[in-house]
Amino acid sequence: MTRYSYLSHLECARCGHVHDATVAQGLCRRCASPLLARYDLDALKREVPRSSLRDRSWELWRYHELLPSSAASNEVKLGEVVTPLLKMARHGADLGLQELWIKDESATPTSTFKARGAAVGVSRAAELGWTQIAMPTNGNAGAAWAAYAARAGLRALIAMPEDAPRITRAECLTAGAEVHLVDGVISDAGAMIADAVSRGDWVDVATLKEPYRIEGKKTMGLEIVEQLGWTLPDVVVYPTGGGVGLIGIHKAIEELLALGWVEGQMPRFVAVQSSGCAPIVSAFEQGRPDSTFWEDSRTVAFGINVPKALGDFIMLDILYKTGGIAVDVNDDALLEELRILGRHEGLFVCPEGAAAVAATRRLAERGWISPTDRVVVLNTGAGIKYPECVDADLPVLAPGTSIPDSAVHASPTP
Amino acid sequence: MTRYSYLSHLECARCGHVHDATVAQGLCRRCASPLLARYDLDALKREVPRSSLRDRSWELWRYHELLPSSAASNEVKLGEVVTPLLKMARHGADLGLQELWIKDESATPTSTFKARGAAVGVSRAAELGWTQIAMPTNGNAGAAWAAYAARAGLRALIAMPEDAPRITRAECLTAGAEVHLVDGVISDAGAMIADAVSRGDWVDVATLKEPYRIEGKKTMGLEIVEQLGWTLPDVVVYPTGGGVGLIGIHKAIEELLALGWVEGQMPRFVAVQSSGCAPIVSAFEQGRPDSTFWEDSRTVAFGINVPKALGDFIMLDILYKTGGIAVDVNDDALLEELRILGRHEGLFVCPEGAAAVAATRRLAERGWISPTDRVVVLNTGAGIKYPECVDADLPVLAPGTSIPDSAVHASPTP
Repeated sequence: MTRYSYLSHLECARCGHVHDATVAQGLCRRCASPLLARYDLDALKREVPRSSLRDRSWELWRYHELLPSSAASNEVKLGEVVTPLLKMARHGADLGLQELWIKDESATPTSTFKARGAAVGVSRAAELGWTQIAMPTNGNAGAAWAAYAARAGLRALIAMPEDAPRITRAECLTAGAEVHLVDGVISDAGAMIADAVSRGDWVDVATLKEPYRIEGKKTMGLEIVEQLGWTLPDVVVYPTGGGVGLIGIHKAIEELLALGWVEGQMPRFVAVQSSGCAPIVSAFEQGRPDSTFWEDSRTVAFGINVPKALGDFIMLDILYKTGGIAVDVNDDALLEELRILGRHEGLFVCPEGAAAVAATRRLAERGWISPTDRVVVLNTGAGIKYPECVDADLPVLAPGTSIPDSAVHASPTP
Repeated sequence: MTRYSYLSHLECARCGHVHDATVAQGLCRRCASPLLARYDLDALKREVPRSSLRDRSWELWRYHELLPSSAASNEVKLGEVVTPLLKMARHGADLGLQELWIKDESATPTSTFKARGAAVGVSRAAELGWTQIAMPTNGNAGAAWAAYAARAGLRALIAMPEDAPRITRAECLTAGAEVHLVDGVISDAGAMIADAVSRGDWVDVATLKEPYRIEGKKTMGLEIVEQLGWTLPDVVVYPTGGGVGLIGIHKAIEELLALGWVEGQMPRFVAVQSSGCAPIVSAFEQGRPDSTFWEDSRTVAFGINVPKALGDFIMLDILYKTGGIAVDVNDDALLEELRILGRHEGLFVCPEGAAAVAATRRLAERGWISPTDRVVVLNTGAGIKYPECVDADLPVLAPGTSIPDSAVHASPTP
């Protein structure tokens, strides 16, 4: 008989210690590192053919055997559509790449990929009996977790930097969350939440402090492979803050390879950071297994302003073992890429996504990516959440004024 | 042999005059009214069973027989996912409704339902050889058409009120459109575009001035019926500006009934307007066939700030013949509904969507909607495009400050 989920246990990503997955868990009790969900892939391979996905709804829950929820009725849903994977012919030509694809996460609830972690994380939290969740955030994760908490009937306590995208505050408040702002960065917000958790009846669901957010992010990888007709890309380019998405996509492909649902070579992973906050790039360039706290971090790509990621060692290991690389891009370069991409393809990406595209341009120029490589770049969210990335000041005409001839007859904006 | 599209001709919505659909057309040459696309439904019924949709991708193009593009290769795509249809159990209970559903258009490219009209409209425009499109907009339509124009390699000229949601300007500019702001309302922008069109080589694609935008909007209706398992709702509640969505959903259901793909009674349609701009409500209450220009219109629900809609007579006819109704809601009521809905369901709807939900509450209170009616409310876009709808001012704490005990131990925000 098939199972709804083939979740078998949790395993520490650092020391390998095994933990019970049927009860709520945080970090490894031995070494305080993140736990990874493990599935009974042998049984799944025997019992469920890939073709059984065919008639399922086109949402992330279609991969339920590889997700933690034990029953469909426990899934908390706000409309987790399979997001578009779009080929960018015009922009690809500009970069000298024949197969440049973008996985556009703006179609998710709350318009960023954070919804995936929240959907799966909140579903599992509710299933395991948690009623109050608390987390620090650079904005988008808080917005997503607050929304799913409301949908599930849980309480949410959120702390975020004052400078986080303002719209994300509005999202948290609209979902009824308790929100606090700090004049600092996400690590300051994290300290605040850890303190509150120690005093009250809250569960800390910060990045990688509970094991299921990563399972949600993993679905990006599952979708990409299925959308490419169950084949693998050559290169995956990912804007990296906490790095859960990169870890998740890699984990997805590992699991699909183990199941035999896809064959071929693991893609090379590219971790993209901002020059104003590049701890992973720095560690990678020195060949170190983990990163050092990045002082005075600063970037318009707020979602990747993470001075020290709990999962840094997992990310770096993935970069080393897949023949990948870490690259940083400065704010000017990523904002310029955002504009060019918009004109070429009509996509308004978030600055983090723009950073990933800009890094792809650089790697193509260097020859690290070759013209025939099949490249999937992650746009982690909608540009509309970052109005400050575009100068929208324009003159205002009085009613009855004519649009100038120069505009009516102008050639296309380049 | 089956055809990709069963488009047969265009028919004037007022005088019934038939126009050739194989060449570009604007308004009816006889009476200057909007043209409606007509399909060879008899042939389609004979040649294509509903079940042939089963293996198609989960995007609006799955209904290609009922859309104008003559080939898949002519479809301009930015990821037109089938948007979620979500049951709202908690909010439904609050309204006394057992079956309250929301069709959430925020998952579309550019995060509003306008993308549907733009996807189908631009695809057809490019197919018919247009290279330069011009339009007035309250913001979101311009953003969507600019994005699809860029993707298709067309030029776009957009005029919008200065007060339109600021993010939509940034979207138009990012897509490389030529944008002009006017100190007025959409009708002032419309006059400006009409003037520019008369002077230059542009095609006016304003609401209903070309026949295919409505075909894109129609897909909302096709999706709703399929998502309800090929059954019909009892009531459809729609926030009404230009009214193309309402006309489109009704047209979709008419076509599905003609094909026999669904059976039953046409739903009652509800047109929702803001009390600050309610020409359709006013006309409906007086039993008139068309509306009068609404002077000094004003509402936070900017998308429905349309003082006089070109398709008013079509909308009103639909309300009369389906036993529907037109209702207005003031800004305070819709903003309050936006907040309550957020807390109940985790959804951050746009003010137009909130108006529709608030109207549903009022109609349920009055008994016009009964507790067992199956009600589908349209949320036409993402709330994140309207940051001014939520007060997000909060105190800022210094790093190291503790979150107050009162917050750590507070009961849930109501």
